[in-house]
Amino acid sequence: MHILIIGAAGMVGRKLAQQLVLDQRIGTEPIDRLSLVDVVVPAKVYDFRNITAEAADLATPGTAEKLVAARPDVIVHLAAIVSGEAEADFDRGYRINLDATRALFEAIRQEGMKSPYKPRLVFTSSIAVFGAPFPDKIGDDYFTTPLTSYGTQKAIGELLLADYSRRGFFDGIGIRLPTICVRPGKPNKAASGFFSNILREPLAGQEAILPVGEDVRHWHASPRAAVAFLRHAMTMDLTPLGARRNLSMPGLSATVGEQIEALRHIAGEKAVRLIRREPDPVIMKIVSGWPRDFDTKRAAALGFKAEATFDEIIRIHIEDELGGKIG
Amino acid sequence: MHILIIGAAGMVGRKLAQQLVLDQRIGTEPIDRLSLVDVVVPAKVYDFRNITAEAADLATPGTAEKLVAARPDVIVHLAAIVSGEAEADFDRGYRINLDATRALFEAIRQEGMKSPYKPRLVFTSSIAVFGAPFPDKIGDDYFTTPLTSYGTQKAIGELLLADYSRRGFFDGIGIRLPTICVRPGKPNKAASGFFSNILREPLAGQEAILPVGEDVRHWHASPRAAVAFLRHAMTMDLTPLGARRNLSMPGLSATVGEQIEALRHIAGEKAVRLIRREPDPVIMKIVSGWPRDFDTKRAAALGFKAEATFDEIIRIHIEDELGGKIG
Repeated sequence: MHILIIGAAGMVGRKLAQQLVLDQRIGTEPIDRLSLVDVVVPAKVYDFRNITAEAADLATPGTAEKLVAARPDVIVHLAAIVSGEAEADFDRGYRINLDATRALFEAIRQEGMKSPYKPRLVFTSSIAVFGAPFPDKIGDDYFTTPLTSYGTQKAIGELLLADYSRRGFFDGIGIRLPTICVRPGKPNKAASGFFSNILREPLAGQEAILPVGEDVRHWHASPRAAVAFLRHAMTMDLTPLGARRNLSMPGLSATVGEQIEALRHIAGEKAVRLIRREPDPVIMKIVSGWPRDFDTKRAAALGFKAEATFDEIIRIHIEDELGGKIG
Repeated sequence: MHILIIGAAGMVGRKLAQQLVLDQRIGTEPIDRLSLVDVVVPAKVYDFRNITAEAADLATPGTAEKLVAARPDVIVHLAAIVSGEAEADFDRGYRINLDATRALFEAIRQEGMKSPYKPRLVFTSSIAVFGAPFPDKIGDDYFTTPLTSYGTQKAIGELLLADYSRRGFFDGIGIRLPTICVRPGKPNKAASGFFSNILREPLAGQEAILPVGEDVRHWHASPRAAVAFLRHAMTMDLTPLGARRNLSMPGLSATVGEQIEALRHIAGEKAVRLIRREPDPVIMKIVSGWPRDFDTKRAAALGFKAEATFDEIIRIHIEDELGGKIG
């Protein structure tokens, strides 16, 4: 199997590549080639007999055709600019999140017109396709009314994915990732950053700022769960999806208070004391428009699984990022 | 007010232009200019002091910019190729139903960057954005999972419309028309044609073919209702829509048997005897994937209205197309 990961330098892309190298196979098939692509050269951090890493911008004409010409069996499309950037730069958001995605889909169709070619295509979408007001739980048949250009671009990608799949141009699945927690790395300025910051920083003995109240509820899954979703999506039988190719992934609905309680179980009161409350009305307002909970029956029935407790999410962070030890 | 109708040579576009000329005003504002555009030159219906009709293809680069440069106050975008054609010609469907729509939206945004410009934009969508399996009634928050490329293109147009409106580039509303019945003109080969044929032809003393069973239920509104939807959408206050700019229009859910019963009330047994049953498994299968009924609370609350009985729909056809007399 030849696997192409587009957006391989991002957090989820890196972890996926690393896991595939460890596995050496995908499902029952050995991986004989792994191609990593991103706008910056992805690190070839892994020992693998046939791995390439290159910088390429899918939004540049000709790039998609070149990537697809190698006829990868599985294509994982993770590349996107984030919500804040797509909102700040309208043209760039549509060019990268919509036009480049469509260019990829179209390149696959064109390649298949030369001689039969029908890869598996895994597209990462987002819960940003939904926009407030919400029901308490967002069900599998709830409509997509995004409140950002990023969410709009992802929702359009989902529609194109379903139509190209229905037409038989590729075998596609779109997966809507929950907010990834605990996100490794440095604190960042994303409005959602604090969900990870308030756990990651105290676990490392550092202070973190909490800009919202403890009653704020949100939808989470670990980086390990995200990688597991992608690996499952790469190999599972897609027949049961029919024409409905896009799925909200399972996750854990939890309040900030529940996150802090889990931190207390695992790292004690000393860690919790490192959380400094600094209410920020701007972040409060943004977050109030975000989904709080989902009913993901379809994904669950198809074998997708996420964590059941925040203790579990924190333990995964300690195992995968901190070498099993709290700093 | 300067009103631009794109797709003005189609059945709904013609009727809308005709009604606007009769009204001479839209809401409380006098119409001082009416621009009709289609890929073929639209008829300059009736006598109006300032009316232009021109052939222009929105899918040709530069056309949208030229149309928008005149800064119409209200733009009604009806232009599309139909479902069957978009399914048969993938490239043409995306070019006309998606790219041309996006070109129009983008031309408005670019015009607004030169100096402030924010027209009302009315986009006609379709119940084809929905795909089976359905609940008995499709509610206002049901997801769009189209089963045709046409439905996909309309659903993408809806998402773009909402995002461009949210960004303030225009004041947009998308209206999903029911199947229009009784459609005037000749019988055509559209799979939905029989819904109109079985009424229109017998009313004119002609035979009509019924390819499905009498229990088939579908969602209808008259041409007059469609024009009323558009006129309301052109002037109503869109504030209550918030970011959710796309609405399923009201309609009448009726079985073929109920249609025939209404024909019997109005034109007698003689007319009903002109319906010849010729079951067609291909059409039966297509129609079984179509919506049967909707719950259109939002549109109703916003003042949109359709017919309540098929007797009414038939009477409108007799008044508007047959000069009040049954042939």
